[in-house]
Amino acid sequence: MNHMLLTQILESVAGGGLGIEAAKKRLADLAMEDIDFAHIDHHRSLRKGFPEVIFGEGKSVVQIIGIMERMQLQEQVILVTRVDAAKAEQVSARFPAARYDAEARMIVWQSVPLPKTGLGTILVVSAGTSDIPVAREACLTADAMGNEVKSVFDVGVAGIHRLMAHKPLLEEARVLIVVAGMEGALPSVVAGMVKRPVIAVPTSVGYGVSLGGLTALFGMLSSCSSNVAVVNIDNGFGAGYMASSINQA
Amino acid sequence: MNHMLLTQILESVAGGGLGIEAAKKRLADLAMEDIDFAHIDHHRSLRKGFPEVIFGEGKSVVQIIGIMERMQLQEQVILVTRVDAAKAEQVSARFPAARYDAEARMIVWQSVPLPKTGLGTILVVSAGTSDIPVAREACLTADAMGNEVKSVFDVGVAGIHRLMAHKPLLEEARVLIVVAGMEGALPSVVAGMVKRPVIAVPTSVGYGVSLGGLTALFGMLSSCSSNVAVVNIDNGFGAGYMASSINQA
Amino acid sequence: MNHMLLTQILESVAGGGLGIEAAKKRLADLAMEDIDFAHIDHHRSLRKGFPEVIFGEGKSVVQIIGIMERMQLQEQVILVTRVDAAKAEQVSARFPAARYDAEARMIVWQSVPLPKTGLGTILVVSAGTSDIPVAREACLTADAMGNEVKSVFDVGVAGIHRLMAHKPLLEEARVLIVVAGMEGALPSVVAGMVKRPVIAVPTSVGYGVSLGGLTALFGMLSSCSSNVAVVNIDNGFGAGYMASSINQA
Amino acid sequence: MNHMLLTQILESVAGGGLGIEAAKKRLADLAMEDIDFAHIDHHRSLRKGFPEVIFGEGKSVVQIIGIMERMQLQEQVILVTRVDAAKAEQVSARFPAARYDAEARMIVWQSVPLPKTGLGTILVVSAGTSDIPVAREACLTADAMGNEVKSVFDVGVAGIHRLMAHKPLLEEARVLIVVAGMEGALPSVVAGMVKRPVIAVPTSVGYGVSLGGLTALFGMLSSCSSNVAVVNIDNGFGAGYMASSINQA
Amino acid sequence: MNHMLLTQILESVAGGGLGIEAAKKRLADLAMEDIDFAHIDHHRSLRKGFPEVIFGEGKSVVQIIGIMERMQLQEQVILVTRVDAAKAEQVSARFPAARYDAEARMIVWQSVPLPKTGLGTILVVSAGTSDIPVAREACLTADAMGNEVKSVFDVGVAGIHRLMAHKPLLEEARVLIVVAGMEGALPSVVAGMVKRPVIAVPTSVGYGVSLGGLTALFGMLSSCSSNVAVVNIDNGFGAGYMASSINQA
Amino acid sequence: MNHMLLTQILESVAGGGLGIEAAKKRLADLAMEDIDFAHIDHHRSLRKGFPEVIFGEGKSVVQIIGIMERMQLQEQVILVTRVDAAKAEQVSARFPAARYDAEARMIVWQSVPLPKTGLGTILVVSAGTSDIPVAREACLTADAMGNEVKSVFDVGVAGIHRLMAHKPLLEEARVLIVVAGMEGALPSVVAGMVKRPVIAVPTSVGYGVSLGGLTALFGMLSSCSSNVAVVNIDNGFGAGYMASSINQA
Amino acid sequence: MNHMLLTQILESVAGGGLGIEAAKKRLADLAMEDIDFAHIDHHRSLRKGFPEVIFGEGKSVVQIIGIMERMQLQEQVILVTRVDAAKAEQVSARFPAARYDAEARMIVWQSVPLPKTGLGTILVVSAGTSDIPVAREACLTADAMGNEVKSVFDVGVAGIHRLMAHKPLLEEARVLIVVAGMEGALPSVVAGMVKRPVIAVPTSVGYGVSLGGLTALFGMLSSCSSNVAVVNIDNGFGAGYMASSINQA
Amino acid sequence: MNHMLLTQILESVAGGGLGIEAAKKRLADLAMEDIDFAHIDHHRSLRKGFPEVIFGEGKSVVQIIGIMERMQLQEQVILVTRVDAAKAEQVSARFPAARYDAEARMIVWQSVPLPKTGLGTILVVSAGTSDIPVAREACLTADAMGNEVKSVFDVGVAGIHRLMAHKPLLEEARVLIVVAGMEGALPSVVAGMVKRPVIAVPTSVGYGVSLGGLTALFGMLSSCSSNVAVVNIDNGFGAGYMASSINQA
Repeated sequence: MNHMLLTQILESVAGGGLGIEAAKKRLADLAMEDIDFAHIDHHRSLRKGFPEVIFGEGKSVVQIIGIMERMQLQEQVILVTRVDAAKAEQVSARFPAARYDAEARMIVWQSVPLPKTGLGTILVVSAGTSDIPVAREACLTADAMGNEVKSVFDVGVAGIHRLMAHKPLLEEARVLIVVAGMEGALPSVVAGMVKRPVIAVPTSVGYGVSLGGLTALFGMLSSCSSNVAVVNIDNGFGAGYMASSINQA
Repeated sequence: MNHMLLTQILESVAGGGLGIEAAKKRLADLAMEDIDFAHIDHHRSLRKGFPEVIFGEGKSVVQIIGIMERMQLQEQVILVTRVDAAKAEQVSARFPAARYDAEARMIVWQSVPLPKTGLGTILVVSAGTSDIPVAREACLTADAMGNEVKSVFDVGVAGIHRLMAHKPLLEEARVLIVVAGMEGALPSVVAGMVKRPVIAVPTSVGYGVSLGGLTALFGMLSSCSSNVAVVNIDNGFGAGYMASSINQA
Repeated sequence: MNHMLLTQILESVAGGGLGIEAAKKRLADLAMEDIDFAHIDHHRSLRKGFPEVIFGEGKSVVQIIGIMERMQLQEQVILVTRVDAAKAEQVSARFPAARYDAEARMIVWQSVPLPKTGLGTILVVSAGTSDIPVAREACLTADAMGNEVKSVFDVGVAGIHRLMAHKPLLEEARVLIVVAGMEGALPSVVAGMVKRPVIAVPTSVGYGVSLGGLTALFGMLSSCSSNVAVVNIDNGFGAGYMASSINQA
Repeated sequence: MNHMLLTQILESVAGGGLGIEAAKKRLADLAMEDIDFAHIDHHRSLRKGFPEVIFGEGKSVVQIIGIMERMQLQEQVILVTRVDAAKAEQVSARFPAARYDAEARMIVWQSVPLPKTGLGTILVVSAGTSDIPVAREACLTADAMGNEVKSVFDVGVAGIHRLMAHKPLLEEARVLIVVAGMEGALPSVVAGMVKRPVIAVPTSVGYGVSLGGLTALFGMLSSCSSNVAVVNIDNGFGAGYMASSINQA
Repeated sequence: MNHMLLTQILESVAGGGLGIEAAKKRLADLAMEDIDFAHIDHHRSLRKGFPEVIFGEGKSVVQIIGIMERMQLQEQVILVTRVDAAKAEQVSARFPAARYDAEARMIVWQSVPLPKTGLGTILVVSAGTSDIPVAREACLTADAMGNEVKSVFDVGVAGIHRLMAHKPLLEEARVLIVVAGMEGALPSVVAGMVKRPVIAVPTSVGYGVSLGGLTALFGMLSSCSSNVAVVNIDNGFGAGYMASSINQA
Repeated sequence: MNHMLLTQILESVAGGGLGIEAAKKRLADLAMEDIDFAHIDHHRSLRKGFPEVIFGEGKSVVQIIGIMERMQLQEQVILVTRVDAAKAEQVSARFPAARYDAEARMIVWQSVPLPKTGLGTILVVSAGTSDIPVAREACLTADAMGNEVKSVFDVGVAGIHRLMAHKPLLEEARVLIVVAGMEGALPSVVAGMVKRPVIAVPTSVGYGVSLGGLTALFGMLSSCSSNVAVVNIDNGFGAGYMASSINQA
Repeated sequence: MNHMLLTQILESVAGGGLGIEAAKKRLADLAMEDIDFAHIDHHRSLRKGFPEVIFGEGKSVVQIIGIMERMQLQEQVILVTRVDAAKAEQVSARFPAARYDAEARMIVWQSVPLPKTGLGTILVVSAGTSDIPVAREACLTADAMGNEVKSVFDVGVAGIHRLMAHKPLLEEARVLIVVAGMEGALPSVVAGMVKRPVIAVPTSVGYGVSLGGLTALFGMLSSCSSNVAVVNIDNGFGAGYMASSINQA
Repeated sequence: MNHMLLTQILESVAGGGLGIEAAKKRLADLAMEDIDFAHIDHHRSLRKGFPEVIFGEGKSVVQIIGIMERMQLQEQVILVTRVDAAKAEQVSARFPAARYDAEARMIVWQSVPLPKTGLGTILVVSAGTSDIPVAREACLTADAMGNEVKSVFDVGVAGIHRLMAHKPLLEEARVLIVVAGMEGALPSVVAGMVKRPVIAVPTSVGYGVSLGGLTALFGMLSSCSSNVAVVNIDNGFGAGYMASSINQA
């Protein structure tokens, strides 16, 4: 809603030049624009609890730096996902405070780290070594959003006793993220062992009928455990974000 | 937006009890609700130019009659799609003015027919005899929405000379709807013969690799003619509605 | 682990007839069986926080009643999902305390309702009228698991202002379940308006390219909002269960 | 139809050497060729209202220049789509009047711009920044075909209030093109706000279950708004062309 | 082309009232219609060598009889495919000369059988007993179209020696039709043994990954033998028709 | 190979009327037919170790009884799969010795049971109660083919400790058949616990993204355990047959 | 069949040392090997009418030359398909008589061209300019196999009158090959105009829902014309081969 | 299970400080951890009969060497699959005893070859020359695991007599691995000729509807022979491993 117009209407009302009913009519006409006005003072980080995240894939270094420069004026934390090492180096040259994680292919810039404010711990579990980049992305995202994060990697279902050995860790977590490719069976098994919510992340790891992660995805959605919900293939960032939204009071 | 609340705010402004800035702040908080209020006087038929249409599939006779009773209080025309003959008979018993088209499986109720107000004629072309129900649904919808409608049925591409014979009819239409199942080639051919927009409707007619209409759909979307856009499989109603939205001034 | 064997080993240790190291060796050999023993006192309802739920589809009345009879000996609540009215009537004849919800096609039996112990409210939002059965299943599940549940039905994206009118309700929920068929766009829009976790439930509502719910599912997984995770098509029960696992302290 | 042959037949008729019936028989035999003859004076730009467009992908610079040289002899406007910057530079060296748009990857050559002759404005709306190239292609095509074109970019459904702010712009357009990737929800929302026709363009933006644009495509075809029709994935050109065919009187 | 109009033009030319050039112009305008005229004396059975075939699925007895009544006035043979026994009985009551084959679910009516005019024999080979209905449909079609037809049934690749025993029969055929469901391997093997063209027909026989015949279809199209071409799933009629078009001189 | 012809050739050789080389030439020409002859004394049950099995689906009672009557003349065991109870009753009336298993929907007729001749035990493991019919089919097939068969049902991965409790049973089996629907994760877990071969059987149990068993199938093929091979969806019979072919010395 | 063994058996028969029946028994045991022997004198080019063709994709220059060297000892013609220009140059250096067609990416080597022996002409029709490489491959294959080949390129269905102009050419062909990508509609239209067999070749030309040629393939298989059979995507060679097998007496 | 804790419990029992029942309760609580302890002395090579295999794809030389260095301390054999020649050279420089097979893209390191201990021979059969790399991977794997391995390559179904010639070899094998791409028909044919188990391996060889091996995979799963089970596309290693698990006593 245009500020000037609104002020003008209200001044007319205050001045008696505009009747109540006529004012109501004019305000109704402006209603749709009001939304934008209503939120103009509430930055996205307020509405959503966290600033927008930069999806680095397909963006140039110039574009990434440009967005970061605008964002750092008013945000305490900036995440850039899916950035390769070459780009990251150039970004780091401009933002020395930015930390790059080569495995997660992610840049985290924080003016000051968010305090750890979650209800409990977020545990990230992954199946094979090739799933680790996605799992790391989930870890870094959840960490940057103000959560305590722990992780257990390489506990695939083909050696189920390795997973069993971590049972206490699984049981004490407030939210679990389980990352797996190929047949994607791990979330079912983990969710069967705990009562807390499990965010399942299929990865594109595999070949042939893995179908770029579709098989893992469908397996997770068909899980016979009920405390499971699923995010897109390779979407470690989304899993970390969702877990944080669950964990934050 | 709650009327009483709005009146109250404006009266406070008028009475001087509420400053301009404070009023702006309170109005902003109410902004979202304003939308609903803003539109409470504008019925959907005003906003969209036509009342909501009843999708009959999966609805009981009681439900259909109930919705029709509410709608006829303020609407001039009511369409019910995908109704079988048994249900239609019961509906007609309650609404004698309702006309049922067995082929299109559609009920049209009009207090008074909409005047024909389109820019030109809508021509509905269909490929095989099995495509006719979908084509009829398109015809009836466009007709009920106030358009002149003509049709040419059974001019599939396997006997291309039959289509050629209707060239003048094709060329004089303002909008064309082309309905076809199986390989779905007809819209490409028709669109290549005219300069007007063609709405293509794939049907689920066929077997084997027809894949319930997906093959016709994909064929139409891959059309080498550019004046073509496509609606969902068997969606004769949608095609008629879209064609009308194009044809109405 | 065989009780007698275990007792015997420990008695030998107590009696000095078996050395510590030898006892450790024998216990290790029994380790795997220990699991079952270890959990024999911990009912599933303790481990998972809720008893197993009976999936009614494909089960006979005799089977359902049989399972319920065993369960009611030790459980406070029993859920049976996907039961048609005919079966439900017979089950109710045997369990007069069982309540059947025809829309959700679900039976809820409670010796005494679980206290409402969640962190906040679970809000169930659905798009079209045909999505209501799935939404109801989510409501009843979450309710039976001890959560405050609210719902807003019929707020599809084709009339976005209807959704806007409910913004405060959306914002105050601790967890949201959003149910939608066809293009499945509603969860994206809702999740963009709140910071809390959204469980998206695709439904099989639609025809043609809806592909039995796959299109809605893929749309939800591709959501440009990050606080969204998804369950299987038509899985209202799973969504309610997952939401409860998030909401319970 | 061979001119000489036709002349000969008619002269025989005129001279009395060929009876009416015999002449009819011979003309019938020539009928098929008549078509070509009939259209030899009607260039494609007359029949279709616009000259053929060059699909640049997979064509060499030599081929593109060759076709353009032939076309510029009789056409006022030439479009080349899907051309990369390197090729475009070489084409521009030969045709200094050709304008290259790097974002849309499109060359527009006009001897003299077509006058703006449409019924109203074509509005191009797009969801994410990655959808802009496709949206730009639609803009340039519609503009080159003689339409007033406006655009609103970056109004995805995850921040629905941004879209709301542009409601007046949406409502005043004669035709709308809505471009979106990922879940492809934007066309449904936009179409629900206006009564004019919406051409939806799915893009291949996304990963995992976006399936190269299929998810957005299917979502758009399943739209619960009826004034929507869809073109192929990434087909900005086709959308612009179709919108123009709707908008031109 | 309108006869009267044509006569009128020619008479004007004959009478000198219309100049050659003006007549050419008017004839050109009529060109498209000429096509239809040109073919009005050439029935489809002349152009295509065989009258149109009635696809019985989804047609009522009344419709089938109606079409047959019109056709028998000028055709020597009428085929109706995909007719169940109940319908067939009623059709036979009206057309005593019609022969119904229950296995092929096909009606053949012949005023007088077409003479056997093919270049050689058409051999129909099928894999399993469940493929026989499709194979029979191919046999009857080819036979009715005037070809010598032989058949070898139940020679699937899991007992390859059974096929080998028929090698001379395979080698002497002019055209082969090979019908198979499940893995669809038989056409590859047969085509590897002969030099004549093989028409492969996938059937929907099978379950699970047979995918309603898609697996057999794709297997046949991927055949490592080159003298193979494929028709739609279960399309025995099409295979017989295609084989006849090959075999007829 | 034609007996008379062969005899004739050899007699000519014996009689000196046909030289060695000429005889070799003629025999070569007959070679292909020899195959059939060569195997005429070797019944399929000898070549393959077991007589052909009757796939009951789509066969009438008359057909089934007919085949059984022919087979019982020379076979000791006859299996009929996928037979419903109504048909089975009629078959049993004719063959009183035939045993029908309602769960497996299978008829087993044995003149005298095959002796148990396998190298070890075949263990059939299944995940959910709905998978039991397929698992039973595997059990009965393997049993009828002369193997010791054990089974453990209802040990799905969502309660992994139930599976663990059966570790000794798993380890002592010579071959394992693992049956699972939904996400199909059980074979991976089981195969990770043993060194023996595991035959995985996906079932069509599930809904939504279970895709009629494709998700379980693909999950099993993507298994991170290497001692796993897979059969078609719901193919309990095939799994039992394959396991027997492995287990028989 | 081992020569020595055969000789030995026959000599024993000739010498009276082996009775007729015993000899028959021993020959039967050798039967399977006889096949190979039987065919050792019949080269593939005799059995199949044409030598094996070299699929160049994935083969090194060394491999291609090696195979060609062996083949040229006994064959009159050698085809190598899918060879890029670089490899072709090296092959030509070794075989100066080899002709390389850059468009078809094919090498043809002939000691002496096969005489033109077909029943009639093979006509290759193609839709768009991008389909020409596949069409050329078909032309060259059919030509090398001893057929008269004609071609009509660039007659897509979006300008159907171009196709009409070639009607006489279509009607005089003995076999037609129709090549098309995108919606793949051309074969239906062509087959509707002629009575001869049409081999349809889908190409991978297109984007989005063209699905790499699957849409064209399915469209062709769903053709409403019956004198059509289809080969694999981009398989110009196979189409030429199949057409030749039809055309050769 | 924590050693110290266990010792402590048992010492308390031994010392009388802990009663039998209390000790049982505490041991139960520790049960899950027992698993790991129980197996800590059993290396994977003991449990599974063979050490873990290194999947080389996507691993760096440094990573491969690192894993090999750890493994060679306690294993007699190390396999690395999917390694290209460049990496292999570097690995060989570090492990001179490692043998690289360029065709199978596999490294085999053995301190001392495993003795040949299988029940019989494993025969690897492959269809086309392009399938050989996958077949070789199966051969090398089975060989390294202590099996006699034989192979027959290039016996595709399009020249079925080549396969027939090897019938004795097929019949004498204890386990068969059949590798095929394209239509994947070979396993059906082979399995029909023998009674032993056949492991079918689809390859990604082919184009168009081969769908990267899915067509071959589905064909093999739909096999009409019952002694067939299937592994993932191109998974020669898995087939060799599975065959060995069958063949080892």
